[in-house]
Amino acid sequence: MPCVRKFTFTEDRMSREVIATLTTLSNGFVSIRGDPEFAESKHGALVSGVYSSTPVFYRELVNLPRAHALYLELEGAPMVPEGVKYTLDIGGGFLEINATLSSPAGRVHYSSRRFVHRVLKGLVGIRASIRSLDASGRLCVKAPVELDTTNPSVPPEVSVKLYRVVSAECRDFPTLDVETADGRYRLRIVSLAKLPGGIGGGFYATSKHVGQAACVDVSPGTSLLVERYAVFSLEPEDALRQAREAASKGFEPLLEEHRELWEREWRELGLSVEGDEDFANALLLNTFHLLQVYNDESEVFILPARGLHGYQYRGHVFWDADIYALPFYLLFKPEAARKMLEYRCKNLDAAVENARRNGYEGAQYPWESADDGFEATPREIPLDLAGQRKLRILTGELEHHITADVAYAVDLYYRFTQDREFLERCGLRILVLTARFWVSRAQWDPARGRYVIRNVIGPDEYHVGVDNNFYTNVMAKHNLELAAQYAREALADAALKERLSELHVTQEEISRWVEVSSKLEIPCKSDGLCEQFEGFFKLKDFAIEPGALGEKNLPQEVLASVQEYQVIKQADVVAAMFLLRDKFPREVLVKNYDYYIRRTTHASSLSLPMYAALALYLGRSEEGYSMLKQAALADIADVYGNTCDGFHVGSAGGVWTAILFGLLRIQPGESLSYERSASLGKVSMSFDVTYRGAKVRVSI
Amino acid sequence: MPCVRKFTFTEDRMSREVIATLTTLSNGFVSIRGDPEFAESKHGALVSGVYSSTPVFYRELVNLPRAHALYLELEGAPMVPEGVKYTLDIGGGFLEINATLSSPAGRVHYSSRRFVHRVLKGLVGIRASIRSLDASGRLCVKAPVELDTTNPSVPPEVSVKLYRVVSAECRDFPTLDVETADGRYRLRIVSLAKLPGGIGGGFYATSKHVGQAACVDVSPGTSLLVERYAVFSLEPEDALRQAREAASKGFEPLLEEHRELWEREWRELGLSVEGDEDFANALLLNTFHLLQVYNDESEVFILPARGLHGYQYRGHVFWDADIYALPFYLLFKPEAARKMLEYRCKNLDAAVENARRNGYEGAQYPWESADDGFEATPREIPLDLAGQRKLRILTGELEHHITADVAYAVDLYYRFTQDREFLERCGLRILVLTARFWVSRAQWDPARGRYVIRNVIGPDEYHVGVDNNFYTNVMAKHNLELAAQYAREALADAALKERLSELHVTQEEISRWVEVSSKLEIPCKSDGLCEQFEGFFKLKDFAIEPGALGEKNLPQEVLASVQEYQVIKQADVVAAMFLLRDKFPREVLVKNYDYYIRRTTHASSLSLPMYAALALYLGRSEEGYSMLKQAALADIADVYGNTCDGFHVGSAGGVWTAILFGLLRIQPGESLSYERSASLGKVSMSFDVTYRGAKVRVSI
Repeated sequence: MPCVRKFTFTEDRMSREVIATLTTLSNGFVSIRGDPEFAESKHGALVSGVYSSTPVFYRELVNLPRAHALYLELEGAPMVPEGVKYTLDIGGGFLEINATLSSPAGRVHYSSRRFVHRVLKGLVGIRASIRSLDASGRLCVKAPVELDTTNPSVPPEVSVKLYRVVSAECRDFPTLDVETADGRYRLRIVSLAKLPGGIGGGFYATSKHVGQAACVDVSPGTSLLVERYAVFSLEPEDALRQAREAASKGFEPLLEEHRELWEREWRELGLSVEGDEDFANALLLNTFHLLQVYNDESEVFILPARGLHGYQYRGHVFWDADIYALPFYLLFKPEAARKMLEYRCKNLDAAVENARRNGYEGAQYPWESADDGFEATPREIPLDLAGQRKLRILTGELEHHITADVAYAVDLYYRFTQDREFLERCGLRILVLTARFWVSRAQWDPARGRYVIRNVIGPDEYHVGVDNNFYTNVMAKHNLELAAQYAREALADAALKERLSELHVTQEEISRWVEVSSKLEIPCKSDGLCEQFEGFFKLKDFAIEPGALGEKNLPQEVLASVQEYQVIKQADVVAAMFLLRDKFPREVLVKNYDYYIRRTTHASSLSLPMYAALALYLGRSEEGYSMLKQAALADIADVYGNTCDGFHVGSAGGVWTAILFGLLRIQPGESLSYERSASLGKVSMSFDVTYRGAKVRVSI
Repeated sequence: MPCVRKFTFTEDRMSREVIATLTTLSNGFVSIRGDPEFAESKHGALVSGVYSSTPVFYRELVNLPRAHALYLELEGAPMVPEGVKYTLDIGGGFLEINATLSSPAGRVHYSSRRFVHRVLKGLVGIRASIRSLDASGRLCVKAPVELDTTNPSVPPEVSVKLYRVVSAECRDFPTLDVETADGRYRLRIVSLAKLPGGIGGGFYATSKHVGQAACVDVSPGTSLLVERYAVFSLEPEDALRQAREAASKGFEPLLEEHRELWEREWRELGLSVEGDEDFANALLLNTFHLLQVYNDESEVFILPARGLHGYQYRGHVFWDADIYALPFYLLFKPEAARKMLEYRCKNLDAAVENARRNGYEGAQYPWESADDGFEATPREIPLDLAGQRKLRILTGELEHHITADVAYAVDLYYRFTQDREFLERCGLRILVLTARFWVSRAQWDPARGRYVIRNVIGPDEYHVGVDNNFYTNVMAKHNLELAAQYAREALADAALKERLSELHVTQEEISRWVEVSSKLEIPCKSDGLCEQFEGFFKLKDFAIEPGALGEKNLPQEVLASVQEYQVIKQADVVAAMFLLRDKFPREVLVKNYDYYIRRTTHASSLSLPMYAALALYLGRSEEGYSMLKQAALADIADVYGNTCDGFHVGSAGGVWTAILFGLLRIQPGESLSYERSASLGKVSMSFDVTYRGAKVRVSI
């Protein structure tokens, strides 16, 4: 049972855009941000997997029509809010909005509930209750499907309309077919409002809107109830079916059904957190968002770095999914973890093509990917309107560790699940093809008799085009070792052996993986301190205040030439060491943790979870918990100042990674084992993880 | 007196976007397209000279807020038109719109008149009369200022918002200050509606709109009258003053005042055309648009190639202004011609900087220019959403003849006006600095002992990067000759001599201009046939059907590699010969005309006017008139299929050029002389031109 079920936000303390991210509702298929239905908004709906070609960013999630607005107009004038209160009920998975709306002809009290339905996956439902305070006159309610939503681009004055309306008509209800701008996806949207005049009435269509409208006379005290539904579906008939079902059931039964599923969800998690209310709240809210972005009916789980909550990173998938978020799903929803890897399976051919384009062998996963698995990182971003200044982005070309991150995730998944079917169908192929990438990526340096990996960006993006980045090399080595290990075991199994022979894997090739992995340069000193990349220790040193978060604490001159300093953006050596913690002696972990934490700005939200994880793993309760809490607060306290642009999946997932693998040292085996390495101060928590089909109760 | 005063358009025969261009109203300061105020539209207002930095196109005219909409909603549902009839009264300079508007709760008849005021230069006024046919219920009228207008960009899915709202409040009326996205201009917009509830009432503000609204109960037969005004001004106090004046005068007196000025305008023109109604209509409509884009209160006359009527070419100024449109103004509104050249004066420093950037001396006018006089031609245009295919545009880098075109216009203006003040202040400087450009642009070719101009695009843009383009070289030669001639005459005049010495012009430099001009390669054969550029005659030949207009008549294989053919887009040799007709023997004009007309697609609207002009000049009445008429019809018959994107200034002006200089061979002198060279079939026309302060009646 979650100990907190409701979160209340008001606009006097937070911006509407931040609240809209925090109160986003999703079922992993459709997603709508929390901005109030009675106010104009640039945000329509997002549908998981529906991307389009776009300027600068290759492909991005399409900001679909806004089909959930409910506009009130009193005597012809739009009613605007005087104060809005948002109550997100995570226990029941719905959002309540209360406001006073005003116009020259008076005020009304407005109260609504909305859901994005957990059974009818295309359905958004809202019921609003409106009561005149001192409003007198004709009150009209409009329920439009707004067809002028666009995707924001860069610079911010630019926007792109990524869909077009193929048809718009009133069948039983206003019904639209829209197609993405590149023609790749077609969606049906059915809108349905129960307005004062009855269901389906007052249909209208203009060039920007299709919808329904109705009016009533109000005087102080008059009340009315309005319901509106919107259905999004990739299958036309299915959209109509869901709309009809919604219309016949009505709001309360639909909400009840939805709520019961959410309650069951929480019961299955059995999550209880006590002792630090702020931490508990943050963890619960993050958990809610991690849960709701997963659609159990989907074949693949595409998890963008900012969820289905905003446009930052354009709906692109990064290593945040495989490394930071996967452990949560692995322990609580193993099917979701598998489907996250299915996304990598589905795009394995694209990864092979990516490698080919870049002159490598095997499969190279793109740093950022959309629906089609090709590199989606922008090469440059215009900084001014005339396009005269541009920011060159090199991560797409140089941040290669993601390929090893995917292989790491495949192994992690398999070790916990023993999902033989997945391994045979796809997992083994990923391990083999990614290993081939690293063999072609590494170069033999005859002078030192080692393989080297030159010109990369590691997780710390302050230092660009470096040689032998610790994280990259260690993870690449692990990738090669995994391939060799899995391949050798596969040789003893008829079906898996068959897979290997389809891939033309020979004993010689396996030996080659071992050869490269064993001779891959890992830049560590004899005292166990590892160098983030070759030359890092020769850079100017600068000690960061303990606890200082972000770049604002760096002196301007350090920030301006940060690449010349031993100052890093996020966990790099420490991330690799935590991920592969069994491979390093404790004193090495301690030494590197102590060295790097004093040189890290944590300007990326991916940093604190890794430091927290390693601190807890090392038994450093106080600093571990302090960082864990800070990481958990990322969104609810808008720590990075960009919550408005989406939910930090990596941070939310990373906190759970730190709890599960840092604090609890959970290990797969015959049964699941764990041993607590540290304390979380006054916090006690318990939850049920799923391990090989069974529930395991974990208490801290 | 114009023989036609009203033009009626309906949407069953033309698209709304084409009609909106044809019914654009402007006073040369504010401009609004003719789309109906009761329907949503992407088009707000344009204000002459208000440009902003923009992607791809450097700077472009800003699509300002739409402040003239009048939306009707019956029982909450937007009323949409069932049929719209537009009547443009060019005699009175106003637009009448009649329509039936419908909604689920019934229909109304809607009738409005609008003007863009000729005295109050910031003022747009509309009065609508609404009568219920079978509409029953609450009818609300909204008069918003719509703050979500954007500029369309490329590809078409992309749009850019080129202004931001600095403040929005209700003073006496809804009042907004907006600033262009680049911060260069700030405008005040005052909106004012007389709605059923009275003036100034029902104020509201949302994130997208600021406006007024009011409602009345209607039943069949009920009528109401609504007025709305919007004022745009670069000076805040002036905006309020105009709004107050509009409010106190009311619509009818304002319209009367406006109408009287338009009637006076037409009286001064004394234009009458008879004998061919289609031609007469086209000429009158074009003349109306040429008249209304000129603002007599402005210091400079910026005349974009598509007027203030649409976004094609982004409000950029081309040679269309100096060569095609200037003659009309020169003969009918000499002050407008001067102000058109003032635009070139104002941007002369930028032209000097352009030359310097390109490695030349003197002043080089940009192929396309916006408000600041720098090169505004896009270098490349994205062809798809992901920006993977781009169209390279070379005109900005290679189409150099515009610099000579400006010099040509300066001389033409001076010969007609003897405007000594202009010459001394600016004209002489333009001639000198443009001559210097050509001296640096031409290269000495020792092999042939001639100066050559390599790697240009001439008016015919099918052939790119050619050497010794006839038009360019002949016009450059003329430019050099003009500079030498004016400079020599200036040496005999104390004040002008002073100007020369400020420019450090020496006798040696004048001799250099003569030297380069006299030895500049002009690629003509001994029989008088001139080659459009070196090598043109060696290209494959292809004869175009006489009368075939546009590229649709070319075989696909010719069009696909048109640069390999003696097929040209528009008048090039013929244009130069017409402009400098006194320099060529008649037989040369005939020979070249006959040669090139059979090889021209006229895919540019700038082609037919030049061919028509030369045909008429040569006394070829029938074909001359046929082409003249075709050119005149460019917009009213949407000949080029892009009238939706703006008015063809070059074509409309070019028709007048053909009449004045081709047909009438008008010559300056002690008094204005003319001799008719051809007939216009059954057409007879007469008009009053202005020559050195006096009116001259011209009859054909």
